[in-house]
Amino acid sequence: MAKNSALIEPRLPRGFVDSEPADLAAVEEMVAKIRHVYERYGFDPLQTPFLEYTETLGKFLPDTDRPNAGVFSMQDDDEQWLSLRYDLTAPLARYFAQNYQDLPKPFRSYRQGWVFRNEKPGPGRFRQFMQFDADTVGAAGPEADAEICMMMADTMDALGLAGKYVVRVNNRKVLDGVLQAIGVADEGQKLTVLRAIDKLDKFGPEGVRLLLGEGRKDESGDFTAGAGLDPAQIAAVIDYVGGKVPSGNEGIAELDAMAALFASAGYGEDRIRIDPSVVRGLEYYTGPVFEIELTFTVQNEKGQDVLFGSVGGGGRYDGLVSRFRNEETPATGFSIGVSRLASALKLTGNLSSRPATGPVVVTVMEKDRIADYQKMVAELRAAGIRAELFLGSSKNMGKQMKYADKRNAPAVIIQGSDEREAGIVQIKDLAEGAEAAASITDNAAWKAERPGQYSVPRGDMVDFVRQIPAVAAWMEVNARP
Amino acid sequence: MAKNSALIEPRLPRGFVDSEPADLAAVEEMVAKIRHVYERYGFDPLQTPFLEYTETLGKFLPDTDRPNAGVFSMQDDDEQWLSLRYDLTAPLARYFAQNYQDLPKPFRSYRQGWVFRNEKPGPGRFRQFMQFDADTVGAAGPEADAEICMMMADTMDALGLAGKYVVRVNNRKVLDGVLQAIGVADEGQKLTVLRAIDKLDKFGPEGVRLLLGEGRKDESGDFTAGAGLDPAQIAAVIDYVGGKVPSGNEGIAELDAMAALFASAGYGEDRIRIDPSVVRGLEYYTGPVFEIELTFTVQNEKGQDVLFGSVGGGGRYDGLVSRFRNEETPATGFSIGVSRLASALKLTGNLSSRPATGPVVVTVMEKDRIADYQKMVAELRAAGIRAELFLGSSKNMGKQMKYADKRNAPAVIIQGSDEREAGIVQIKDLAEGAEAAASITDNAAWKAERPGQYSVPRGDMVDFVRQIPAVAAWMEVNARP
Repeated sequence: MAKNSALIEPRLPRGFVDSEPADLAAVEEMVAKIRHVYERYGFDPLQTPFLEYTETLGKFLPDTDRPNAGVFSMQDDDEQWLSLRYDLTAPLARYFAQNYQDLPKPFRSYRQGWVFRNEKPGPGRFRQFMQFDADTVGAAGPEADAEICMMMADTMDALGLAGKYVVRVNNRKVLDGVLQAIGVADEGQKLTVLRAIDKLDKFGPEGVRLLLGEGRKDESGDFTAGAGLDPAQIAAVIDYVGGKVPSGNEGIAELDAMAALFASAGYGEDRIRIDPSVVRGLEYYTGPVFEIELTFTVQNEKGQDVLFGSVGGGGRYDGLVSRFRNEETPATGFSIGVSRLASALKLTGNLSSRPATGPVVVTVMEKDRIADYQKMVAELRAAGIRAELFLGSSKNMGKQMKYADKRNAPAVIIQGSDEREAGIVQIKDLAEGAEAAASITDNAAWKAERPGQYSVPRGDMVDFVRQIPAVAAWMEVNARP
Repeated sequence: MAKNSALIEPRLPRGFVDSEPADLAAVEEMVAKIRHVYERYGFDPLQTPFLEYTETLGKFLPDTDRPNAGVFSMQDDDEQWLSLRYDLTAPLARYFAQNYQDLPKPFRSYRQGWVFRNEKPGPGRFRQFMQFDADTVGAAGPEADAEICMMMADTMDALGLAGKYVVRVNNRKVLDGVLQAIGVADEGQKLTVLRAIDKLDKFGPEGVRLLLGEGRKDESGDFTAGAGLDPAQIAAVIDYVGGKVPSGNEGIAELDAMAALFASAGYGEDRIRIDPSVVRGLEYYTGPVFEIELTFTVQNEKGQDVLFGSVGGGGRYDGLVSRFRNEETPATGFSIGVSRLASALKLTGNLSSRPATGPVVVTVMEKDRIADYQKMVAELRAAGIRAELFLGSSKNMGKQMKYADKRNAPAVIIQGSDEREAGIVQIKDLAEGAEAAASITDNAAWKAERPGQYSVPRGDMVDFVRQIPAVAAWMEVNARP
């Protein structure tokens, strides 16, 4: 091919990663547990495509002020503008509006999938990442929001995080009431106030105070413009965040109704809690908003203990479907950040990160007998055992053993000319060998014992291999579907 | 939101589809069976991102002559050109070259994922579709190619297609020998000859003859340029495709070696067969090429019986990794078209296409008792039963029953004021009710019997529901992971 021309450097664009077997197994295990909870709650799966018309998706990303920033867009063959989805909510609104006649209403669905952001990547900040969403479209009452919150709490329990999380709940209408009372009416200014409050965990009350007022300069010297509130307005907002909530507000009534449902269904304040500091950065929320906070601490880059923090959030967005349909369609939902949650579960020991068991490796000792070795592999596989033939060009024994080790093979099969003539195979149980190697230090004793190595009649090979503990364990987990 | 401005039409771009629960369950079931075979063969999963540098992917699409046709490309924030992957082979080559030092060699991997083509969509031709690939990189011998073919045959058996497929195998070097002998040396002309032969199934020998010569005009009047061979050259190619293969060719020796491996491992010609008409349209193949053909017939749009045909193919591509590394890296692999295979399995009855069981629906009869109804739902879910509360605004019984029906609910729970006072719930077994409705025609008899409807003490609700056959069946399949 390009052998004589300039070589291309093999590299991934920044902010993208490859997922290897251990990562994939961990995410799969986690996702299976989440799905089980969602299915039990009556939610059904749905998959929308990765590309949608740019106009369909609209522009509801937080923290991006430039018109097309944040979204990967391109023109197709017909010169139509398409965009890669940047979340799983905008496509759901399109799907629901497009299939309105046929769908059960209310419509509960869950969606697991990759989303894309055309932004500067950073540590833990990717340009392709996975979200796991659940939404109820067409249900207006607080019982729909309460159900989502209880489902999130049950999901955290199912993942083994009982006692280590809290679902925090607030209502946008409460804050809207506060802002109205202090004379903030401009939508842009409101949004800046919301995003300032959303930074409470990150910058503390003093940082929020600056963002509500003139603005804040960070350690690198970058300046973020503030909401421009006067001192009295700032004080009112800070009071509210500190817990001073107005009475007689529609949002308060909805929060009270949700709190009553949590209590009667047995969800205590240790699991789901009303908290006025929750705002969420997205513009489109119209009522209840919620987020899951993990309450254990981790060390930040400065070595300080900080809360692990949010692994997902959501809220009610009654206006999103009405971009397509000439009537308000109530909707509420939640989105989990899959890789962030997976990191948390690895930290708490609730998700394995060890590599899976590899295949039994049949080595090649006599190159003209490939067909015989392949027959051994075929017999092992037919018995349901994970097995492979060494396919490299080297027939050097050391290289083949090193390969088996790298593959995390539970066992190796060897048949050279001596074994062939005797009608046997050598079987090495690599785990047993490794264990013995840790205790036997005497070289002579090792050679005499040859721990983990067995001479077995060729006809008994499959039965012997099947009983090696690591092989038996793999077969139990990987029964034929 | 946009309530007073112009509404946006909710629509998908052409060539993209939404996947609903029954489709997703079918693909999941099929993929689990394929994965089980691949894992048993020692292949490990790998996932690469959807976007790569445009330069990394290169341009190896068949049937597209315009320079950027076929690929969705865009510039990112840093003005770098990125493209959506159009297959799963080019990203594998990048991954292998990038991680060369750390990977076991040979490296076996499988990858399941969506790929994208910026082309005119048509019937059964999508712009986003799923491929399922398996590849061995770093193994040069025909035993690696033979292993891939045997794995494909075992996969078809595992899917229930025994007796309904054949894996057809050829070698590019054989055809290269024929072309050399008749004086075709230009790479572009060679490729046009390959693609002409690849159309044998579609256009028959006469169509291939035209494509080898002056070109072919289709029924709509579109003209495809030919390879420009003279009549003697055309005759030689047609003879070859008809089975007349040259002797003393390196490709023939490799095919013989593969045939010997198939025979010794017990794969008969009914499952894997050498066939000189297989060429595959891709430029980068350098040796063995293979494809799976399903041999049962279906009706085409003209009502004629035709073979179902190919559901995947592959071959050896020893030059692809050398775009990144200054040495040849042998590689061989196979790609299955997931949705085409799923369609075939539905036709043969090997894949279910019925909707999954829905949740038990708890109806809302007294609006001020939402908390009580939600408690019922919580009890059912805690017992592992799929259940939901009716969240719609209407409390009309008929509407709630219609909703339960649309959800494919196995049962409905009803508690109005009478039942509440008596301390009972009404439970409707909807399957039993539907069955009875088919046999009872007498209205009075129906009302007297109320088939499938039971009055049950509130405290026995969970135990009763658990024993409804459709509920028990769901619980058995969906045990907690």
